[in-house]
Amino acid sequence: MINFSYQNATKIIFGKNTENRVGNETKKFGNKVLLHYGGGSIKKFGLYDRVVESLKSAGLEVLELSNVQPNPRLSLVREGIDLCRKNNIDFILAVGGGSVIDSAKAIGIGVPYEGDVWDFYTGKAKIKSTLPVGVILTIPAAGSESSTGSVITNEDGWYKRGAGSTLMRPVFAIMNPELTYTLPPYQTAAGAADMMAHIFERYFTNEPNVDLTDRLSEATLRTIIKNVPIALENSENYEARAEIMWAGTIAHNGLLGTGRIEDWATHDIEHELSGIYDITHGAGLAILFPAWMKYVYSQDVKRFAQFANRVWNVEIDVNSLERTALEGIEKTKAYFKRIGMPVSLSEANIPSDRFEEMAAKGTENGPLGSFVKLYKEDIVNIFNIAK
Amino acid sequence: MINFSYQNATKIIFGKNTENRVGNETKKFGNKVLLHYGGGSIKKFGLYDRVVESLKSAGLEVLELSNVQPNPRLSLVREGIDLCRKNNIDFILAVGGGSVIDSAKAIGIGVPYEGDVWDFYTGKAKIKSTLPVGVILTIPAAGSESSTGSVITNEDGWYKRGAGSTLMRPVFAIMNPELTYTLPPYQTAAGAADMMAHIFERYFTNEPNVDLTDRLSEATLRTIIKNVPIALENSENYEARAEIMWAGTIAHNGLLGTGRIEDWATHDIEHELSGIYDITHGAGLAILFPAWMKYVYSQDVKRFAQFANRVWNVEIDVNSLERTALEGIEKTKAYFKRIGMPVSLSEANIPSDRFEEMAAKGTENGPLGSFVKLYKEDIVNIFNIAK
Repeated sequence: MINFSYQNATKIIFGKNTENRVGNETKKFGNKVLLHYGGGSIKKFGLYDRVVESLKSAGLEVLELSNVQPNPRLSLVREGIDLCRKNNIDFILAVGGGSVIDSAKAIGIGVPYEGDVWDFYTGKAKIKSTLPVGVILTIPAAGSESSTGSVITNEDGWYKRGAGSTLMRPVFAIMNPELTYTLPPYQTAAGAADMMAHIFERYFTNEPNVDLTDRLSEATLRTIIKNVPIALENSENYEARAEIMWAGTIAHNGLLGTGRIEDWATHDIEHELSGIYDITHGAGLAILFPAWMKYVYSQDVKRFAQFANRVWNVEIDVNSLERTALEGIEKTKAYFKRIGMPVSLSEANIPSDRFEEMAAKGTENGPLGSFVKLYKEDIVNIFNIAK
Repeated sequence: MINFSYQNATKIIFGKNTENRVGNETKKFGNKVLLHYGGGSIKKFGLYDRVVESLKSAGLEVLELSNVQPNPRLSLVREGIDLCRKNNIDFILAVGGGSVIDSAKAIGIGVPYEGDVWDFYTGKAKIKSTLPVGVILTIPAAGSESSTGSVITNEDGWYKRGAGSTLMRPVFAIMNPELTYTLPPYQTAAGAADMMAHIFERYFTNEPNVDLTDRLSEATLRTIIKNVPIALENSENYEARAEIMWAGTIAHNGLLGTGRIEDWATHDIEHELSGIYDITHGAGLAILFPAWMKYVYSQDVKRFAQFANRVWNVEIDVNSLERTALEGIEKTKAYFKRIGMPVSLSEANIPSDRFEEMAAKGTENGPLGSFVKLYKEDIVNIFNIAK
């Protein structure tokens, strides 16, 4: 186990009707709120009205910035920063999924910073302060509700890049599983793939002594694997929705990465993919992860055999850990297929002609990953496996 | 899953040599430190010198209060409160295990309170503020390093009572597994029994839909079960010591209780036991838990069968979940025996003549527990099973 620091102060407020507490929770941090959200779905189902009422009855002033898109854009972030500065906003409330939260986090760190907020995403500047950000989560997937990160797309060159800091953890995250009843099956499944990918990025490490976090990771994976088909069958199954939602937070709140070196190559590769093609992040990960696994498993066959056994109930073949490992990878792919995810690039209508370009762009600053370091040609190979 | 709020802001600083960071971490919160510890063991192994040097080179003023005893005493807490007030102490650093930390937490909430600190332990007063408390953990067991609770013994009547508040979570917990190399086997095992008991108190709930937290609990239990014998065999096995130490925190930082109603009857019964007899808390729990399990398992045979299967690898007997459940309880008891814990009151030289008295005292304020509510006669019955 390697040395680590871990701190996560996000207050999780979980369960039915919890969105009605947003006014009182927000009041602890600010008086003038930027309400940040995406499209009309929060209006369609009445959430918008309940949130505004709760904020107003707590005596808060509310400004709005909507239209956050999937793969949230830098231009809207800059607009939000201007808006906050001009109106002395002191709190940002994100109502939505990972895109809205990531956009809110970017605005939060941008407001007190004198330079351009993109500096944080290129590594040019270090995050030193932020406006407080609160969350009402409507899409369990990205884990951004209590994570340290934010991923933003710069339309100028379509660069999709991340920034991170403990300071960026939201101060509270309100999580009502009922708000996820209206998620379409595809988005439910893509969210699950994203969560599972967050765990995979941590699970496949070269640090051999990580017993507790291995087991906690397997526990979280098994919970997702069991409950997603239940939610797909009955979108209003509260218990399944609740398990998925809480698992999505645990998958990415940092706990499962303690004591180990994380990988993140597959996420980086997916960012290149969804930077160019219009594909849901989770779907991109469902396509790429089995391919990545096939490409790298020989780095640690034992770890992949353990994964197959403990996560997918594959019997350990003591005469061939390799067979066990490969069966686990096949089960991963079959599961993604079962829940309705694409598992090849062709299924997602992504052609083969820009593999080199994406691989080159992704490795501009050096190889990706740490479990196995991936250079340009490795990434092309992984794209070819995923074809 | 029931509604819940969860927040844990304790900064965990984990790994080799981390105690040398105590000065810099403390400086973020205060200038004048009460260094609180137990006996001479921190001096014997050089830890005391390293801590004092780190504090002094960070420019901090240090006062000391030592001699915290197992089952920490109210009289020393009161002494600490006086000392802090007279010297304008603004930070308390606990160096030790659960007793030292609990004592530090009690001093922390006592200093800003005008009444008697015991009011918090009788439920007469509500905790509204505290001096910040930091921790260097030397005994993994109680989980107090990031928990909300503190248990203190009032010598006037030998009442052992707890107080709790999110405010009482330490601001940081420095955890170097090397500091636990010198723990004798008995204390290592008693610590493990305490951790396992913290999970049992949460695992056995009447809330049926707790999939994720069940699995996380089983993961943490399996980690402890696997690593304790390794540490007992080789007390300087860093990896086993690290797994045990981190598991002890996870067992009691509140995560495993999210979404469920917890029990805590067995802890309450043990407090009566160790309030009268000189027995280590973990050893008391090792004696009482298998007895409690036998007394209550019929409340939810399926849950006990799941426990037997997932934690102890007992094959599910579909024709007799009861047999499966009972085998799990036997395995629990056998494990405690294997790691050197007493598993009956007689082994700990505790006679049968005061069962009624302890049961009466424990239920003065009503029945104990929630999985099964236990009245005076139930507690006597459990003592008799544990004889």
